[in-house]
Amino acid sequence: MTDAAPGTTRQIILKTRPDGWVVPENFEMREISLPALGAGDVLVRTIYISLDPYMRGRMDAAKTYAANFEVGAPLQARAVGEVAASENPDFPVGGLVFGLLDWADYTAVADAAGLRSVDPDLAPLPHHLGVLGMPSMTAWVGLREIGQPKPGETLVVSAASGAVGQVAAQLGRIIGCRVVGTAGTDAKVDYLLDELQLDAAFNHHSEQDFLAALQRSCPDGIDVYFDNVGGAMLEAALDAANPFARFVQCGSISQYNLVGDERYGVRNLTHITRKRIHMQGFIVSDHSARMGEFLSEVAGWLASGEMTYRIDVTDGLENAPAAFIGMLKGDNFGKQVVRIGADPTEG
Amino acid sequence: MTDAAPGTTRQIILKTRPDGWVVPENFEMREISLPALGAGDVLVRTIYISLDPYMRGRMDAAKTYAANFEVGAPLQARAVGEVAASENPDFPVGGLVFGLLDWADYTAVADAAGLRSVDPDLAPLPHHLGVLGMPSMTAWVGLREIGQPKPGETLVVSAASGAVGQVAAQLGRIIGCRVVGTAGTDAKVDYLLDELQLDAAFNHHSEQDFLAALQRSCPDGIDVYFDNVGGAMLEAALDAANPFARFVQCGSISQYNLVGDERYGVRNLTHITRKRIHMQGFIVSDHSARMGEFLSEVAGWLASGEMTYRIDVTDGLENAPAAFIGMLKGDNFGKQVVRIGADPTEG
Repeated sequence: MTDAAPGTTRQIILKTRPDGWVVPENFEMREISLPALGAGDVLVRTIYISLDPYMRGRMDAAKTYAANFEVGAPLQARAVGEVAASENPDFPVGGLVFGLLDWADYTAVADAAGLRSVDPDLAPLPHHLGVLGMPSMTAWVGLREIGQPKPGETLVVSAASGAVGQVAAQLGRIIGCRVVGTAGTDAKVDYLLDELQLDAAFNHHSEQDFLAALQRSCPDGIDVYFDNVGGAMLEAALDAANPFARFVQCGSISQYNLVGDERYGVRNLTHITRKRIHMQGFIVSDHSARMGEFLSEVAGWLASGEMTYRIDVTDGLENAPAAFIGMLKGDNFGKQVVRIGADPTEG
Repeated sequence: MTDAAPGTTRQIILKTRPDGWVVPENFEMREISLPALGAGDVLVRTIYISLDPYMRGRMDAAKTYAANFEVGAPLQARAVGEVAASENPDFPVGGLVFGLLDWADYTAVADAAGLRSVDPDLAPLPHHLGVLGMPSMTAWVGLREIGQPKPGETLVVSAASGAVGQVAAQLGRIIGCRVVGTAGTDAKVDYLLDELQLDAAFNHHSEQDFLAALQRSCPDGIDVYFDNVGGAMLEAALDAANPFARFVQCGSISQYNLVGDERYGVRNLTHITRKRIHMQGFIVSDHSARMGEFLSEVAGWLASGEMTYRIDVTDGLENAPAAFIGMLKGDNFGKQVVRIGADPTEG
């Protein structure tokens, strides 16, 4: 324990579980005393936390693949931080680390569980939560393992300017596909066309008829649909799919905050049989054995400029709940992170 | 051409395309003159035709995987018949053949296209349209290629007393699964339990809550769902599915006769991601290379008594439309065939 280590921390807890849309009242900020560190423990000062749509599922009582957040306990997130105090020789004070941290200024990590060092020379720190992290590997695994797009095929990516979608879309472009993206604002559509150089893109808020928009954007039909949104866009993609299309079911953010009959009913699943569609869900953590292969590919494209990655930074722990709620509504433009504390690598 | 060959035949044509439910007015019986046979042609007297749910799709204008029936032209079916006249040395008069024939007393088959000889000693003639034919191979391919159930896993088969379902359910039992079947009458449920020896079965007409019925029947959850019905049962099966479940999308007969918003909206596809479900459609004809392997397995089980197969025979060409309409409503009990003409192998 160094002299500089604080005795208390602010943290945000799950006060109540959301019923439908997440609201500010589901969160509460509190200040707690930090525990004394034992042998092997590390105290981490949070720099950035990653906010990701899958965390919505962790707020429900029903168990999903990830452990639920507990009511009354701090929310957690993938995060990058700096070691503020340490009883662990592998993690000296001042070192930069990645780990699962609380939504908090500081997290005491028992036995340094899950921490690993971060190389700040590889990329700016937020990239370790995005293009070099879980969201990007999610895109990579979904296309490599399930979608398997071939050069010349048409790949549609929904929410294509989001944390996962950006990488899925660019990976399709690198493979040599015709890539079509959907997004929720005209500025995002411009980003898809101008920065990510997709072949076509449209705004799902201004298009009245998703099927018509997909058919216009995909004159040869859809071979691979990388789904981040579910609902009506998924239904339209089934209508526009080619025989033997692959549907990569990564997420369905349009449905996460709806309950019961509010949820969209997909009425055309008969296409799955008639078109011999292969639809498959996956969770990136099942594929962690491929982490090295993923990192070497994507880090290479990032270094060469073949891949770019947009990040949306919100400042301040107190603003994390609003940023999370906004992300669930699509207010973010790029991968959503929250800067909790000063980034020592910033000039 | 033999002297006994007839000059005319009755046949049933598609008079109008159905809009939703098929009705008797979509069909018309007519009598036509048979063409003179040229070199290589064969005239076949129909004995049995097979009525299968997928034929509903062929009645629509929209193309599915199978060519559409044409308005004004005879409907077609997989069939077993007897050569009535022949200009083809491979198919002598009196031989029994399998082929795609008209819904008719006689079909002139140019160049004997698609005909193959049938061995009446292998099994009763209708079996060549069922347990040794397309429906059975559909079940076999769906489980071997997609479902891949392992001993001890729970397999649920919807419409389990139907043409495909009977074989899927028994194959699961032979593999060593816990097998649960659904059917539409108590008599069919009794058949599933008593004759097919399934572990559990329920009547989807008397169960108000499909999820509760599935949970009661599958205390360890569903590992493989072989879907013949779609709609609300599919939704419930997604709710009851285990992580990494496989969904074999063979058909969705509950939806074939519904249009627009009448079709059931499946609201819980988010499970596909969270449970990492693999859902795949298929068409048996894509897998014809495995025909020999299929036949040797199933014929063996049929001979040994490990597999049984129930057939529902309707008599008379004039009753084929009503039998087809009834099958779409689940009135058949077992694989539906129509006996068009005398079966020479019957005692």
